Amino acid sequence: MNMPGSKKKVLILGGGFAGMYTAKHLERLLQPEEAEISLVNLENYSVYQPMLPEVISGSIGLTDVVSPIRRICPRSHLIMRDLEEIDLARKVVTVSPGFRPRRLELPYDYLVVALGGTTSFYGMPGMLENAKPFRNLADAVALRNHLIHALEEADVETDAALRSKLLTFVVAGGGFSGVEVMAELNDFVNSVKKNYSRIRKEKVRCVLVHSGDRILPEMTQDLALFAQRILARRGVEIVLKDRLAAATSEKAIFKSGVEVPTKTIVSTVPSTVAPVLQKLDCAKDKGRLLVNSFLELQGYEGTVWALGDCSSAKTKAGNPVPPTAQHAIREAKTVAHNITAAIRGGTRSEFAFEGLGKLGSLGHFSAVAEILGIRISGVLAWFLWRGIYLSKFPGFSQKVRIGLDWVIALLFPPDLVQLKMLRESDIRRQHFEPGEVVFNQGDFGDSVYVIEKGACEVIREQDGQPRHLADLGGGDYFGEMAVLADVSRNATIRATTPLDVLLIPKDDFSTLKNAVPAFGDVFKELAKARSGMAKSESRPEA
Amino acid sequence: MNMPGSKKKVLILGGGFAGMYTAKHLERLLQPEEAEISLVNLENYSVYQPMLPEVISGSIGLTDVVSPIRRICPRSHLIMRDLEEIDLARKVVTVSPGFRPRRLELPYDYLVVALGGTTSFYGMPGMLENAKPFRNLADAVALRNHLIHALEEADVETDAALRSKLLTFVVAGGGFSGVEVMAELNDFVNSVKKNYSRIRKEKVRCVLVHSGDRILPEMTQDLALFAQRILARRGVEIVLKDRLAAATSEKAIFKSGVEVPTKTIVSTVPSTVAPVLQKLDCAKDKGRLLVNSFLELQGYEGTVWALGDCSSAKTKAGNPVPPTAQHAIREAKTVAHNITAAIRGGTRSEFAFEGLGKLGSLGHFSAVAEILGIRISGVLAWFLWRGIYLSKFPGFSQKVRIGLDWVIALLFPPDLVQLKMLRESDIRRQHFEPGEVVFNQGDFGDSVYVIEKGACEVIREQDGQPRHLADLGGGDYFGEMAVLADVSRNATIRATTPLDVLLIPKDDFSTLKNAVPAFGDVFKELAKARSGMAKSESRPEA
Repeated sequence: MNMPGSKKKVLILGGGFAGMYTAKHLERLLQPEEAEISLVNLENYSVYQPMLPEVISGSIGLTDVVSPIRRICPRSHLIMRDLEEIDLARKVVTVSPGFRPRRLELPYDYLVVALGGTTSFYGMPGMLENAKPFRNLADAVALRNHLIHALEEADVETDAALRSKLLTFVVAGGGFSGVEVMAELNDFVNSVKKNYSRIRKEKVRCVLVHSGDRILPEMTQDLALFAQRILARRGVEIVLKDRLAAATSEKAIFKSGVEVPTKTIVSTVPSTVAPVLQKLDCAKDKGRLLVNSFLELQGYEGTVWALGDCSSAKTKAGNPVPPTAQHAIREAKTVAHNITAAIRGGTRSEFAFEGLGKLGSLGHFSAVAEILGIRISGVLAWFLWRGIYLSKFPGFSQKVRIGLDWVIALLFPPDLVQLKMLRESDIRRQHFEPGEVVFNQGDFGDSVYVIEKGACEVIREQDGQPRHLADLGGGDYFGEMAVLADVSRNATIRATTPLDVLLIPKDDFSTLKNAVPAFGDVFKELAKARSGMAKSESRPEA
Repeated sequence: MNMPGSKKKVLILGGGFAGMYTAKHLERLLQPEEAEISLVNLENYSVYQPMLPEVISGSIGLTDVVSPIRRICPRSHLIMRDLEEIDLARKVVTVSPGFRPRRLELPYDYLVVALGGTTSFYGMPGMLENAKPFRNLADAVALRNHLIHALEEADVETDAALRSKLLTFVVAGGGFSGVEVMAELNDFVNSVKKNYSRIRKEKVRCVLVHSGDRILPEMTQDLALFAQRILARRGVEIVLKDRLAAATSEKAIFKSGVEVPTKTIVSTVPSTVAPVLQKLDCAKDKGRLLVNSFLELQGYEGTVWALGDCSSAKTKAGNPVPPTAQHAIREAKTVAHNITAAIRGGTRSEFAFEGLGKLGSLGHFSAVAEILGIRISGVLAWFLWRGIYLSKFPGFSQKVRIGLDWVIALLFPPDLVQLKMLRESDIRRQHFEPGEVVFNQGDFGDSVYVIEKGACEVIREQDGQPRHLADLGGGDYFGEMAVLADVSRNATIRATTPLDVLLIPKDDFSTLKNAVPAFGDVFKELAKARSGMAKSESRPEA
């Protein structure tokens, strides 16, 4: 099928284990003269999902839990850009600009789609602003830093209610990922807490919420119940037959109406496909790309393959392929084989792997495992977990690093360094539920607010009595007076309906006010009108 | 002096080695009933400056190069907040709000100021926007990530001039810090470059610029010349008797007028004191707090002490105290002793340490050292450097971690994982020198610009001929058309004078436009006027 001298362009989208292993197998199967392999991924590494929760406690070094794609696939061209568009008709993929503001077009002969999933909080109020996803390395590091920040603040905080919120941690989703995150988080917080002298004796509350009637739906009932007992013994509250429905900066709200006051909500609930695939017009099953048992995209057989979490596939025997690392790695082998067959001619192979077993870590020398039909739990399962996952980790140097990390983690207490990298103060959105306070009279004025949706009321305490001063709704601004005059808030703002606001931090507000006078004028006039009103008695503003 | 039962409040500002060791010694010298020790620091760790450059290559794990303050000083209260004000008259320090937007006031009986330095780019155009400081862990991680990003982009970039800029690295300052950063950076880039197949053979250019007539002013001439030879042999260009004067996103501009096209400028030039000290009204010497040989702040003897880089001190023998870790650690001991004397009564001690020697790493098995009068260079100095600094690192577990990191770094190639945490797209400033292009016709429209200072021209290429369309100056906006209409730039913008602009990224622009209609109107009307002009022939806009 291949004309001599015509080098084929194979383009792989996504650098998770599915995409990276496809490239790795293709490098082995195809000669450099036969094909040029390119791989598009936003990061220059592949995350080993099963070990990601260990980043929380730092028992694996931050950069040891990932594999540098360039080392594993030295012959592939890595393009570290964001995907903008896939054009299946023109056979061209467009990626975002880099240092130079030009989009880049990548033509292909053969396309592999391995984009995994993305977290979607669609239709769940306040989740985007307040629930932390747990998918990639940045998420894991951000969660670790947030936990340390919460402990640091709890140690300083004098208000008991706020301290208790800071020491409450909610994880949504009782699958492997949620259970492992909860186990690691609970171990970590309880272990480092003793370094915080003022909260050493306070109770830490960890809540795991899951929609089913037991956790770990991937496993048999007895192993799931074993896991529940282990977690409960370590102090984790397990809430079943319920789910996270909404979130604010002060609490998690479950579907049943139960509210948990907390500053930390982690969501590991199942995901949707990447936006670039959502707008792709092709055969799909519940949003995921529909492929045949050769893993070819329906309608693009012999040209486009899809694998991993973004695809919906059945094995040769007709069973649906679950979204796990062991399946992704084997799918990659099938895809690489079939691309080679497409280039050279030859027989395509069907995906026939049915899974070797299931492993879930519970942290702290415990795990659950079902391997080749045998069920194991406890210390032995934990050794199995570590042994099997370490042996599957790509690259010898990484294996050594992780092994040493584990030895160190056994010998010494976990590290509590907060590697702060994020600037927290940019223009962002926030969600409030009815009755929640946006800010209190007397607070420091750090942001200006614009109401995008919902309503709130302005309340001022005078002579010990709260007085209702005004109602505000969509399109209204508030909070400009304290920011413009650099004083503290002169009133309290409380949501009267579900409220979505845009926060403009003080620094950005000042910059914009000076650069775009019309912008500043809007707020200056408002402040003038409101302070005039305040003086002439009635409706002032925070 | 101390009344029985009256627990004294000792407040330490700054958690560098000076502050952290003061707390550590105080915990040993004073009983818990005698004093409550608090320490304010923005991070919960102390950075070991001499090893910080090793974070660049990852030869020391990201979080291994720092010491968690809570572990070293378990009895002190760490307050992880930003300093806002020091009131020496009222004996109160104010810190920024945490999760709750209230400032916190901390009263003290005894105050220790150990705030180190901060990088100041005052009066150097474009430095704040384009030169990277190298002081703390976040700086080191950000530099490492930037280097990897530059290599990734160079590997994809087809434009040779841009590729060469991406592969040029400028470090300003030839003291210990600048030399160590340059040595690590040069080793790292040249070592990982081979993983980038398209730039494997391209030249990397590393330029070290220093104001003196030789680098390492801290050392004797022969050792400095040895270091220069070693660096030159590894391909580093050393530019002497010159200094960095300005920077843009495209080049470094030296005082002599020499320009180096580059995307990476690191500044290690000496620093100034923290802003909170700049506004403090007390005795100073070139901005630094003036202390006597007991390290007491002039005018506040027996109440306020200052040490480390933020203070100006002389030893008992009358020699100025240099800003090094070994001096800071000994100053901490003196301060702790003198605070104990102030509380219990007793004799104060004078600071008499004159330094044991000087060590500078050149990376790659080489270093220079002057110890107890003996000068050593090369491999032996390198072993000395590692041995001495490792032995001085506080905490046994960290020593083990670093030791293992070093063994791994000797056995395996450096890790090239880019741990991206920063969102790059917030409202920010940028500086352009005359003749530089802000954006080119045909570029992707990713930001709207507001001119804060300076002027630029609008040029459109028509029939292969550049045509001057308009001049813009302070307060003018540009770039809104491509962003509003989501198309590429229809003209080129070039600075005609030094130009300072505010960049509003597309996302923030859209959000603000919708939330504050008056803001959007400014740009919509402008765009309408300009596109009207464009149609009726003359002055359109990018």
